[in-house]
Amino acid sequence: MRLSQFFLSTLKEAPAEAELVSHRLMLRAGFIRRLGSGLYTWMPLGLRVLRKVEAVVREEMNRSGALEVLMPAVIPAELWQETGRWDKFGPQMLKIKDRHERDFCFGPTHEEVISDVARREIRSYRQLPLNFYQIQTKFRDEIRPRFGVMRAREFVMKDAYSFHTDLASLEQTYALMVATYSRIFTRLGLKFRAVAADTGAIGGSGSHEFHVLADSGEDAIAYCPQSNYAANIELAEAVAPDTPRGAPTGNLQKVATPQTTSCPDVAQLLGVPLHQVMKSLLVMSETGKPYLLLLRGDHELNEVKAGKLVEGMRLASDAEIQSLLGPVKGYLGPVGLKNEVIAVIVDRAAAVLSDFVCGANEAGFHFTHANFGRDLPEPVQVADLRNVVVGDPSPDGQGTLDLCRGIEVGHVFQLRTKYSEAMSITYLDEAGQSRVTEMGCYGIGVSRIVAAAIEQHYDERGIVFPPAMAPFQVSLIAIGLNKSALVQEATTSLYAALTESGIDVLFDDRDERMGVMLADQELIGIPLRIVVGERGLKEGLVEIQGRRDASAEKLPLAAVLARVQERLA
Amino acid sequence: MRLSQFFLSTLKEAPAEAELVSHRLMLRAGFIRRLGSGLYTWMPLGLRVLRKVEAVVREEMNRSGALEVLMPAVIPAELWQETGRWDKFGPQMLKIKDRHERDFCFGPTHEEVISDVARREIRSYRQLPLNFYQIQTKFRDEIRPRFGVMRAREFVMKDAYSFHTDLASLEQTYALMVATYSRIFTRLGLKFRAVAADTGAIGGSGSHEFHVLADSGEDAIAYCPQSNYAANIELAEAVAPDTPRGAPTGNLQKVATPQTTSCPDVAQLLGVPLHQVMKSLLVMSETGKPYLLLLRGDHELNEVKAGKLVEGMRLASDAEIQSLLGPVKGYLGPVGLKNEVIAVIVDRAAAVLSDFVCGANEAGFHFTHANFGRDLPEPVQVADLRNVVVGDPSPDGQGTLDLCRGIEVGHVFQLRTKYSEAMSITYLDEAGQSRVTEMGCYGIGVSRIVAAAIEQHYDERGIVFPPAMAPFQVSLIAIGLNKSALVQEATTSLYAALTESGIDVLFDDRDERMGVMLADQELIGIPLRIVVGERGLKEGLVEIQGRRDASAEKLPLAAVLARVQERLA
Repeated sequence: MRLSQFFLSTLKEAPAEAELVSHRLMLRAGFIRRLGSGLYTWMPLGLRVLRKVEAVVREEMNRSGALEVLMPAVIPAELWQETGRWDKFGPQMLKIKDRHERDFCFGPTHEEVISDVARREIRSYRQLPLNFYQIQTKFRDEIRPRFGVMRAREFVMKDAYSFHTDLASLEQTYALMVATYSRIFTRLGLKFRAVAADTGAIGGSGSHEFHVLADSGEDAIAYCPQSNYAANIELAEAVAPDTPRGAPTGNLQKVATPQTTSCPDVAQLLGVPLHQVMKSLLVMSETGKPYLLLLRGDHELNEVKAGKLVEGMRLASDAEIQSLLGPVKGYLGPVGLKNEVIAVIVDRAAAVLSDFVCGANEAGFHFTHANFGRDLPEPVQVADLRNVVVGDPSPDGQGTLDLCRGIEVGHVFQLRTKYSEAMSITYLDEAGQSRVTEMGCYGIGVSRIVAAAIEQHYDERGIVFPPAMAPFQVSLIAIGLNKSALVQEATTSLYAALTESGIDVLFDDRDERMGVMLADQELIGIPLRIVVGERGLKEGLVEIQGRRDASAEKLPLAAVLARVQERLA
Repeated sequence: MRLSQFFLSTLKEAPAEAELVSHRLMLRAGFIRRLGSGLYTWMPLGLRVLRKVEAVVREEMNRSGALEVLMPAVIPAELWQETGRWDKFGPQMLKIKDRHERDFCFGPTHEEVISDVARREIRSYRQLPLNFYQIQTKFRDEIRPRFGVMRAREFVMKDAYSFHTDLASLEQTYALMVATYSRIFTRLGLKFRAVAADTGAIGGSGSHEFHVLADSGEDAIAYCPQSNYAANIELAEAVAPDTPRGAPTGNLQKVATPQTTSCPDVAQLLGVPLHQVMKSLLVMSETGKPYLLLLRGDHELNEVKAGKLVEGMRLASDAEIQSLLGPVKGYLGPVGLKNEVIAVIVDRAAAVLSDFVCGANEAGFHFTHANFGRDLPEPVQVADLRNVVVGDPSPDGQGTLDLCRGIEVGHVFQLRTKYSEAMSITYLDEAGQSRVTEMGCYGIGVSRIVAAAIEQHYDERGIVFPPAMAPFQVSLIAIGLNKSALVQEATTSLYAALTESGIDVLFDDRDERMGVMLADQELIGIPLRIVVGERGLKEGLVEIQGRRDASAEKLPLAAVLARVQERLA
């Protein structure tokens, strides 16, 4: 592509509201332009990147045997009512009324639609397994769209849905999808991890998220550098300590801790290590039953884990603390708990504490040297309540955990029969019996990948795309194009040779200043550049330089094509 | 693709509600499945066809120098309010409120969005001309969606928008787009015509529609077989007769024509040719001014033409006829018109009539031998008011007109400055003066093309796709695949050889009955089939047959690949 025939619109500065690097760089590079909140136009340069991602996703999905379809974006409410999600999905669902006042939505996901197709089409076990996918524009009415296409309202998604006779078949396709996703992200040149994930609201059992690793990621991931273990922090198990609880070394003592309510402040005041302070959290279940959760002062409550023990868990309000225990906010503790209605759940790490500090259930006072079995009952319910921390043993026994941050770009689920039961997707088995299908679903945030890749690949000069995603593979820069017949001839023939070899070249024929041309090429992230100038040509040489290379390599003009092919291979 | 790994879902019968051939065949072939009114899922087989159409459109648009973008489907109301189309577009626009009760629509077209992009991006004449396009899902809330994807509510459209410094540049790109569209439809193997069209509600001047010719088409097209002239019937000019008006041959006579009000009935009753009867139509303008339109009894009023003379034209109601002329409905005429407020417009062909029959403005009576200049004034306003008919002279003077029916699949417009003025799309010219851009827009109904192609290419056995659009180029059918090692070996190696040569093969490895496999191949429209059976193989032969061929050709196995390549070339 000749730049004079393309549309390049780079900016020196990004709009102030763009906080994230990828958002700033995508605006500066002219990849996207904002139409409204969470709505972006993909400009020619950005669309090239998006399409390259799409193409890799499509190729690998096809290779896996999945079949591409295209479902409507606008979905009748009736289907969502069958699964109960019309009411449950929440305000992220963009609801629409048509001219006849019938209810529809702009599909945020397509389980119901594919289920409707499947229940009409699937008759026999002989048709199964089936895996349908589409690459489509979705809409989720985010309450706070931000970060450009990272959390847009309208976005491009690859969603796949598989149907099976039994769990073994579902597990097989699920494993195939995990392998396919790994191929996709590897081909795209991204550092990523497949992490065990919570299944959340979408339901079913068995789920992995795929994260592109980046410091700016919204999700915390626990992983084991010594093994393949990785899990979303929400799910990563904090295994029980293998050291036994120590014996008491002192007597329970009530000490004054006026205006000292947080664990770190108490630790400092009393001169004890933070992990020796017991954190006591009063929470309520959906039905209003109170629980006291005990954790080490240096550990954080994991609400997902706790939510599995205390249905609909939320922190108790000040009024609830007052009503259940009196005016003891900030001084709650398990010793001498005055209300027998309150059940106590102790975190695994907290359960082995001895001689700990805890609130005295009296404003302004804590206990020191508290010990289970002596000053308060032995824990009845011990559970994993906390987030893992760096150095925790890996649940697979292969080493210790480390933490990193990631951007979720893929999610695979074993839905099992949640949707197929609600929508009666059945098949006749070999014995002629009607059975409900097993089902899986597999999503990739196609447009988000572009932003995530930039978060992982940039420097102070701009984007550094992995070659598979770059808008162009090579930029060809001519110095003094309109002044030198030599340059004119060399670049024109080189451009033709590269193009004919199927290489995606952006020929900067603008006759701009060298600095402008180089800055643009660096900003938009083209992996390789060739600079042709009269001075070099007189020595028979042109320069070639990778986006990350410290300096250029000088080559005879005739050797350039082969070198480019070598570097792109 | 092995059929055992694909999803084929053919039906013996189409649902009764499918009226149109293409709709029936697309359902029977399993190309689409209905989700709701005007909403269809493209199944794997149908999507292959849609993608092939898309690919040709994209290649040719790129070849023309247009640049692909992707705009949001969901568009803020504010943009439509700037051009006034938020209110004017009508109920086809699917309006949406987001969670903050802000107004949006599901884009039915994107003039406003691209204009918003353009006014931010275009600064200088040096950037122009520019032509942006996208291939995108659109929604128009049709009052009566029907005919499957032919008139669906959600559909895939290619829409392009160009920006120019002046009309000459616009005209150049417009001509390039007309040529590009012609290349697209030619490559797709469609019989089509570019016809001059009315610009209608979208505004601007200069417009052509592209029609795929098919008897089932909704649009009537007038064309000249002796030249390139073609126009939508709404626009095709009925040129003035070159024969002068004849002299009167009899005296005006009032005759009783009780209960005879239509022109054909009057002609029959009085024994005169229909073209000798004058049709008199009372119409009203927007402002309530009445007009009497005179046409030959055998001609039809063209409302678009008349609407250009009488703004907001509509037929007068019975009450209006009564109030203006008395109880003379069905007996209106220009002779002795009692109300001077009524202006008379005479069609060109009607203006040369002599000795004509017309209503007497008296219930139950007509005049015979009426003559202009003698019995009524000479026509003051003579105009083209009628639809052309077969045999009319072509307006380009090259022969006579014929009529055919077409399906509109493309539309190009010279919008001029309608949108760029409303939305202030300006550029600085060479003198540094700010000027408004000229603008064009160019649409193709990508999903409709699939249906239109089928309307033009089918027989009693199913679809007969042009090769460029077929879901597969070749079907490979094995007889007794699981019974004969010979067949197994021959088909497997042939399949590999075809696939490696880049040929799109559907290998029917179902081991079904021969009749079933042939019927499916014929229904879904694969252009070429290869049948491999043990009997043939023993003679060293396989059969190859084009979808339209009367009989098969027998070839040695080794010669098949070359023959297939030859036939597909």
